Amino acid sequence: MSKNERVPDAVARRLPGYYRNLRELETEGVTRISSGALGERMGLTASQIRQDINCFGGVGQHGYGYHVPRLKCLIGQILGIDSPHRMVIAGAGNIGMAVAHYASFRKEGFTVEAMFDANPAAVDPAASPPVLPVSALAGFLAEHPQDIVVVATPARSAQDIVDAAAAARVPAVWNFAPANLTAPDWMEVANVHLSDSLMGLSFRMHERAVRAAEDGAWTRE
Amino acid sequence: MSKNERVPDAVARRLPGYYRNLRELETEGVTRISSGALGERMGLTASQIRQDINCFGGVGQHGYGYHVPRLKCLIGQILGIDSPHRMVIAGAGNIGMAVAHYASFRKEGFTVEAMFDANPAAVDPAASPPVLPVSALAGFLAEHPQDIVVVATPARSAQDIVDAAAAARVPAVWNFAPANLTAPDWMEVANVHLSDSLMGLSFRMHERAVRAAEDGAWTRE
Repeated sequence: MSKNERVPDAVARRLPGYYRNLRELETEGVTRISSGALGERMGLTASQIRQDINCFGGVGQHGYGYHVPRLKCLIGQILGIDSPHRMVIAGAGNIGMAVAHYASFRKEGFTVEAMFDANPAAVDPAASPPVLPVSALAGFLAEHPQDIVVVATPARSAQDIVDAAAAARVPAVWNFAPANLTAPDWMEVANVHLSDSLMGLSFRMHERAVRAAEDGAWTRE
Repeated sequence: MSKNERVPDAVARRLPGYYRNLRELETEGVTRISSGALGERMGLTASQIRQDINCFGGVGQHGYGYHVPRLKCLIGQILGIDSPHRMVIAGAGNIGMAVAHYASFRKEGFTVEAMFDANPAAVDPAASPPVLPVSALAGFLAEHPQDIVVVATPARSAQDIVDAAAAARVPAVWNFAPANLTAPDWMEVANVHLSDSLMGLSFRMHERAVRAAEDGAWTRE
């Protein structure tokens, strides 16, 4: 995409959802989908879907809708997942292991080359992926350039990992630690804040309960 | 909050981030913070911060800023986390275990009463929290009303769990399975799509690489 055709931010944020839904549709054996049906699945209107897809250069066929594998391929290109990504995971606890064994990441070309842990009991170079001592991280990154470092350590160790990634010029960090990290400008950092999702759920439950109580109060008046 | 004072959606989405940052500040021993400093931490302007906080009824003191513990407490109330939440987790794999042992959830009053797994080898009623066979889920929910069911099973089992939660009138589901779930209208569902976060990171890396290549091309012209 050239300078003047950059995808707008709001559309960019929806891109992963498009990709995920198209992947699911493909798995379900669906080869064509209308903007209306795709919109219903994604909680968007048919017209939003058409605008978005138009915006990233996709074309539907009038009366036939979109070709699912072709559209998925196009969005995959825009997402940059048509080329493989190498990653290492710092922290071989539950989160690290969940990421390492998430089958769909591998399918999309994200391969975990190694994991690193501070706990000697967790180290297992024969495992797949191998789990190495965290002291070996800097040397590994210097010898095997990576695209992404996943931070799945406790919060107190997270900054050290980011610093090691920065020193090795790794372009991206995917962070699961509940910590405020400092990274150089050239590095992309995506944070997964599990607690934000849980708090958001709590908020919506609470709001619904308050609304229900109020509706009850109104009814009784 | 009464009907006419509902928090706008855009502000509501930022609430968990406010809560998380205020919790971190409290841990760091900070008791007062200016809108400017809080904004810098959260990637918002000072004026956005003042508008948001004003919107959910918080008051800063001119020249002193916001009282961190008081503001955290207010936001906690709006998020509904001043009352305890009971939850069970379906799936005792890496994701389920990560949620079960995430210390900060417990601190915020979210307690895991039990986990359930389809694999007999994973069952361990003596563990803390106990891991029970998934066949015991419906009976457990009937006897011990829950606020949240966490779905941390493979995608193919996720709908069955949601159906069991719906039958027991559990008001909320927190879903980690990469599946399109059908839930009754009265149920709140929050989905954590790990792959969306990874694809978003990939997109931003890719866009940055394209931009850098273009800038190089411009320079050479």
